Amino acid sequence: MPVDLQAPNPADLLPVPGVRIGSTMAGIRKPGRRDLSVWLLDEGAAVGGVFTQNRYCAAPVQLCREHLQRPGIRAFLINTGNANAGTGADGLARAKRSCVALAAKLGIQAEQVLPFSTGVIMETLPVERIEAGLDAAIAAAAPAQWFEAAQAIMTTDTLPKAASRRIEIEGRPVTLSGIAKGAGMIRPNMATMLGFIATDACVDPGLLNALAREAADASFNRITVDGDTSTNDSFVVVATQKAGHAPITDLNSPAGQALRDALNDLAVQLAQAIVRDGEGATKFIRVQIDGGRDEAECRLAAYAVAHSPLVKTAFFASDPNLGRILAAVGYAGIADLDQNRIEMHLGDVHVVTQGGRHPAYVEAEAAKVMAASDILVRVHLGRGTASSTVWTCDFSEDYVRINADYRS
Amino acid sequence: MPVDLQAPNPADLLPVPGVRIGSTMAGIRKPGRRDLSVWLLDEGAAVGGVFTQNRYCAAPVQLCREHLQRPGIRAFLINTGNANAGTGADGLARAKRSCVALAAKLGIQAEQVLPFSTGVIMETLPVERIEAGLDAAIAAAAPAQWFEAAQAIMTTDTLPKAASRRIEIEGRPVTLSGIAKGAGMIRPNMATMLGFIATDACVDPGLLNALAREAADASFNRITVDGDTSTNDSFVVVATQKAGHAPITDLNSPAGQALRDALNDLAVQLAQAIVRDGEGATKFIRVQIDGGRDEAECRLAAYAVAHSPLVKTAFFASDPNLGRILAAVGYAGIADLDQNRIEMHLGDVHVVTQGGRHPAYVEAEAAKVMAASDILVRVHLGRGTASSTVWTCDFSEDYVRINADYRS
Repeated sequence: MPVDLQAPNPADLLPVPGVRIGSTMAGIRKPGRRDLSVWLLDEGAAVGGVFTQNRYCAAPVQLCREHLQRPGIRAFLINTGNANAGTGADGLARAKRSCVALAAKLGIQAEQVLPFSTGVIMETLPVERIEAGLDAAIAAAAPAQWFEAAQAIMTTDTLPKAASRRIEIEGRPVTLSGIAKGAGMIRPNMATMLGFIATDACVDPGLLNALAREAADASFNRITVDGDTSTNDSFVVVATQKAGHAPITDLNSPAGQALRDALNDLAVQLAQAIVRDGEGATKFIRVQIDGGRDEAECRLAAYAVAHSPLVKTAFFASDPNLGRILAAVGYAGIADLDQNRIEMHLGDVHVVTQGGRHPAYVEAEAAKVMAASDILVRVHLGRGTASSTVWTCDFSEDYVRINADYRS
Repeated sequence: MPVDLQAPNPADLLPVPGVRIGSTMAGIRKPGRRDLSVWLLDEGAAVGGVFTQNRYCAAPVQLCREHLQRPGIRAFLINTGNANAGTGADGLARAKRSCVALAAKLGIQAEQVLPFSTGVIMETLPVERIEAGLDAAIAAAAPAQWFEAAQAIMTTDTLPKAASRRIEIEGRPVTLSGIAKGAGMIRPNMATMLGFIATDACVDPGLLNALAREAADASFNRITVDGDTSTNDSFVVVATQKAGHAPITDLNSPAGQALRDALNDLAVQLAQAIVRDGEGATKFIRVQIDGGRDEAECRLAAYAVAHSPLVKTAFFASDPNLGRILAAVGYAGIADLDQNRIEMHLGDVHVVTQGGRHPAYVEAEAAKVMAASDILVRVHLGRGTASSTVWTCDFSEDYVRINADYRS
């Protein structure tokens, strides 16, 4: 049950000149699902990406890192139903074979293809089914396929996640469109599983990785559903260079800043959509930690709160058992934290002062805040001026049901 | 529903000379519960303890640390129904007042009392109800009250947890008895919430903290239910010096070793009992990581597996979705882990070799192992010779139900 989230209107998703997307049902894990898609990029597109920090990274992630060493990426190949992770040397060979197959059909090199997989870990990739589906996916490729592209990467997602932005640079319209997927095994570390944003902006190719890293850090690296960092997290930004303005060579120029703002804003919307569609989620929770010595310790505390099963079940129950939040802040790993300086607000309700219950705190007021679907928790550490925010969801019986069932 | 765990037989719990325990129903949170207990220690008893590393440690934990600076502890005062954590200066004053009240009745100093609290966080301690219950608890004090002592510290526990050992030192019988509680907010860091072991062994008082630390490290510091480190974790060892053998002044002497072995063994039994009675648990899981460079990185990986909601829900479902274990090992934080050297066994089934699915692996065999109530997971990192084991339980819909309901 997604929290304040609806499927995008296909008419609101703007084609990006230089990008065509096609998808099909290849029967990778189950029949009747749109589970294979290809992205075809016009020559000249620049691509940057960030990938999971999980040491057990999937075979396609290993290939993406390798292929992005050189310019000239011309296609993405994305499958759901199988993560091709925990598959050893055989998995790597199968991922390569799928790139070779698509490259042959497109008349490009295998190294110009980026492969992405999502689904069950430690299963053999049915590469022959991917190969068999390529012709249909290529034939379907068209610019106005962003809604279908979002559908084609869903696994336990209940809704496709896609959005667009339009800005102007030097008086010329510039479009950004993006999609993302993910509902469980979500605690991205450098990227999410999976996010794609394309723009026709003209950008020095050497800046794409920095753009992707900044956008991921502002968005996907601030969310968590269950604390499980995936083996396949990938976030990729494409700039097709078609918009006709002078190329951006400095991200701090007015044009560079306009592009970054739009890109980060779009990435935040997609990242929040993943949390709103988190497995079993009934609440969207913003955990804001202020008053830290640096951003790192604020983020540490925010993630401790956002990962605590006890905090998450209390939110599910709309039960202001808020001491659980204090306990999580306490064990977050800030070695010299002084509990007597902690302040906590739930929405506008001042719950904790100087480490203890605020004398004016009335539980019924907190219960009112917790009954909403969108909740802000603010904790002030009383140590400095740094802040960090993490977005998460609650933890319901449905999360257990979904994950005890996922493969069936 | 506890996993392979029964209530102890009261007749199996051995009195420890020099320790009397009394408990009563003080109505601290709800009427009709045995929620207050006192331990009375004969003069000369030596006490050591380890306490939570949570920076938001409870008021009683702060007092225990202070009171243990000096010898001469003569009494414990334990309440359930209220953790007296997240209560600021007022909480500390109330904990002190409860020590003063008990000390006055016993004719000792307040600093000779160790207070312990467990229950809901951020609620005001009803110290007057504790004071009102003291006479009844003291009047009930007797040596053969270990079963009642275990009952008197239960919160969401479904069974009391207690055990005894008897060893011989210099031909004289030496007794150890202990109790523990805890089912949720269990990821002890230096201790558990709460564990108490008493022995009549004669031990140099200066060695008690070392004994407690070693026993905690072998037992309570290897368990997790939900990853939430409590604000109130406390583990205390008492040596009443009554057994009549020559005092142990060297823990590596034969007598010292015999005592350590019995103490560690007893602590492991109590710690495992907490996991077996973990909130909503249906499975007891041993996560053993071998082949690490040092014990610390093995423990890091073991806890990543033991905390993963995805791993825990798969165990609940008896679904060998074992790639989730690989993913957790991968994100555990071992920066230079080489996935191609990983081996994994589930029970005796060889699941993963060289980082990928073992060619001879048949899922039905793993499913058989997962259907049992006691499961061993072994992961070999292929980096060295260190090992570490963590004990945990699975994650069921009942965990959510229990914790969405805890205060009601």
